[in-house]
Amino acid sequence: MTVDLHNYVATVENFPEPGVSFRDISPLMGDGVAYKQAVDEIAVFAKQLNVDLIAGPESRGFIVGSPLAYALNIGFVPARKGGKLPRKAVSASYSLEYGGENVLEIHEDAIKPGQRVLIVDDLLATGGTINATREIIEKLGGVVAGVAFIIELEALHGRDKIMQGEREVPMLSLMTY
Amino acid sequence: MTVDLHNYVATVENFPEPGVSFRDISPLMGDGVAYKQAVDEIAVFAKQLNVDLIAGPESRGFIVGSPLAYALNIGFVPARKGGKLPRKAVSASYSLEYGGENVLEIHEDAIKPGQRVLIVDDLLATGGTINATREIIEKLGGVVAGVAFIIELEALHGRDKIMQGEREVPMLSLMTY
Repeated sequence: MTVDLHNYVATVENFPEPGVSFRDISPLMGDGVAYKQAVDEIAVFAKQLNVDLIAGPESRGFIVGSPLAYALNIGFVPARKGGKLPRKAVSASYSLEYGGENVLEIHEDAIKPGQRVLIVDDLLATGGTINATREIIEKLGGVVAGVAFIIELEALHGRDKIMQGEREVPMLSLMTY
Repeated sequence: MTVDLHNYVATVENFPEPGVSFRDISPLMGDGVAYKQAVDEIAVFAKQLNVDLIAGPESRGFIVGSPLAYALNIGFVPARKGGKLPRKAVSASYSLEYGGENVLEIHEDAIKPGQRVLIVDDLLATGGTINATREIIEKLGGVVAGVAFIIELEALHGRDKIMQGEREVPMLSLMTY
């Protein structure tokens, strides 16, 4: 028996900016059944891709990626916001959805050349954080085996930005809005 | 067969301040075997306490707490830094270890009165974030069933701050330094 994950998404109008409908997966994460179902659905996708590691951007990507890594018995690599990692790291910058720029970083020793990495996040909007995470993984010699999201906001065309050129990778979204 | 988790802690001298030895659990999280072992050890503790929910402070608490919630088939409640949650939230402030003050918030509907909550984090230092998380949980009518950490820095006496007065709760630390 499965639940309809849509019932565990809270839609908040005009957040963080007027006119924006924010899709909040807190209710999904707070419910043991829905949370496990979502993680397990992504785990099936990850197994098909033979991934060695899960990576997720700070900080909601941690809540999707770390249980997934646990479920697959593999490691989790956080892509942290700039200046937070204590050891030597590789970084990439990206434009914020609502203006400004940010930096993500991954420890240099977190990914070995040739390792297959699945990037996950709670929500795909414009794709900026995902492309920055991908850039770092590839600088470290890793292979982005795929990308997965709980929610994809189709109107923002993040999928096209991730896939542009010859950079197509397998992608899973559990829900689209 | 179990691994020695100490082998998966990187010690970084003089970070984030001169004279401080930073204990970094990135290698532990990045290794499937060590990560699963750590989460499973905390899961045994959590089961004894009959917890309904796992709560963890942003953002390394997410990487410990969310796989634990998954392992136990229960929900995960993030205690987020101020201003990030989209819906009505309850907050508490705490002093930062290296100066300044911060705010943590939990969505008002994330915890129901009487629910038993285990608070987890990667590392117990002065206990400020844990006490703030506890304050919010109790404001919402939840019961803090226990606290658990991968690492406890004994010299900072965080344990005493959490337990002060008649507020003793079961506590687990997988490693002490």
